[in-house]
Amino acid sequence: MAPKAVVGRVSLYLRQLEAYQHQGCTTVSSSQLGQPLAIKNAQVRKDLAFFGQFGHPGIGYRIDELIDALRHILGIDREWPLALVGMGNLGRALLKYRGFRARGFQVVALFDNDPEKIGQDYDGLVVEPIESLRKTLAPRQISLALLCVPAEAAQRVADLLVASGIRGILNFAPLPLVVPAHVSLVAVDLSIQLENLAYKVQKTSGEVSCAG
Amino acid sequence: MAPKAVVGRVSLYLRQLEAYQHQGCTTVSSSQLGQPLAIKNAQVRKDLAFFGQFGHPGIGYRIDELIDALRHILGIDREWPLALVGMGNLGRALLKYRGFRARGFQVVALFDNDPEKIGQDYDGLVVEPIESLRKTLAPRQISLALLCVPAEAAQRVADLLVASGIRGILNFAPLPLVVPAHVSLVAVDLSIQLENLAYKVQKTSGEVSCAG
Repeated sequence: MAPKAVVGRVSLYLRQLEAYQHQGCTTVSSSQLGQPLAIKNAQVRKDLAFFGQFGHPGIGYRIDELIDALRHILGIDREWPLALVGMGNLGRALLKYRGFRARGFQVVALFDNDPEKIGQDYDGLVVEPIESLRKTLAPRQISLALLCVPAEAAQRVADLLVASGIRGILNFAPLPLVVPAHVSLVAVDLSIQLENLAYKVQKTSGEVSCAG
Repeated sequence: MAPKAVVGRVSLYLRQLEAYQHQGCTTVSSSQLGQPLAIKNAQVRKDLAFFGQFGHPGIGYRIDELIDALRHILGIDREWPLALVGMGNLGRALLKYRGFRARGFQVVALFDNDPEKIGQDYDGLVVEPIESLRKTLAPRQISLALLCVPAEAAQRVADLLVASGIRGILNFAPLPLVVPAHVSLVAVDLSIQLENLAYKVQKTSGEVSCAG
């Protein structure tokens, strides 16, 4: 399996290729692909070589071809139905998040344990009780879940998701979860992104002070 | 400036060190630090060496000392007041997100352009109109903003934030923004995390099939 950082860059390459395609381009070099992303062309070539041989001598990459290949590699040349567990503010925000549907991810089932939320209708989806997870997920072949319950409930609900046959969990609760090896887990820790921003701002301020 | 991937791993090391500290440990080796994070000890040493010399021969890392050093490196040995722009579901979810305050980030000002939202009180913070950005941010030394407005408004509001003296933007809108070089930008693209999850699930399924 490719390292997470490589897969993350492949997602970025795919977005950049789609932008070029949208502009009417048909081929692209590794430099042109990396430049808007601030990724060096050697890194672009190395990342893509991890998955196969995509370049054509004297031409570079054929954009349509590389888009198809990268979508296949990422596993997004298909639709992924999603279960969304936890209909608080974050869950409701994710339900409306337009970035998912554009990439083939679609929330098709909602769950909560709050009696006031169960039975509510969001764009045609009715919130089901947590106890219905197993009954709902298996026959509908839903293998991915967005977990947006409060931290103190996250591990318990993750266990229920695993018991219901889920294969991958995107965890928004700010704590690590334990899942069996056959279940994949990606944690969205927003404070890490904010720390990265603080680091950059601090560094940039230092440089500005020195220059001034 | 250190690459984003290195800074991201430093955030992870810091969390792991804090967990060890909480357990009563006082020293740790690079293997012990990397192991729960699935990061090789050579990588741990290389990442830390980017910022200085922290290990002690025959001891490893002193946990208290390394925590202080990493917090200083990341710029989180201080409080960072935040402006939150866009009080939709995502903005309200972020306001309650406990992961931020635990790392020294605190939302201290709220903004929206919806007359129904302006003037509303959230835990003692009153939503101000977007037009008040400049007037509010400068005197309070707020340099970081969480941008959670709809995609079509994101660039316009980012321009206003820059004009109001903001130095760093955490962008939740699923599109790239353009900001001047003195302003730092970190994009939270949730679909990239979901693509990473899909890739892992697909790979794990493949491995399971082969083994079966």
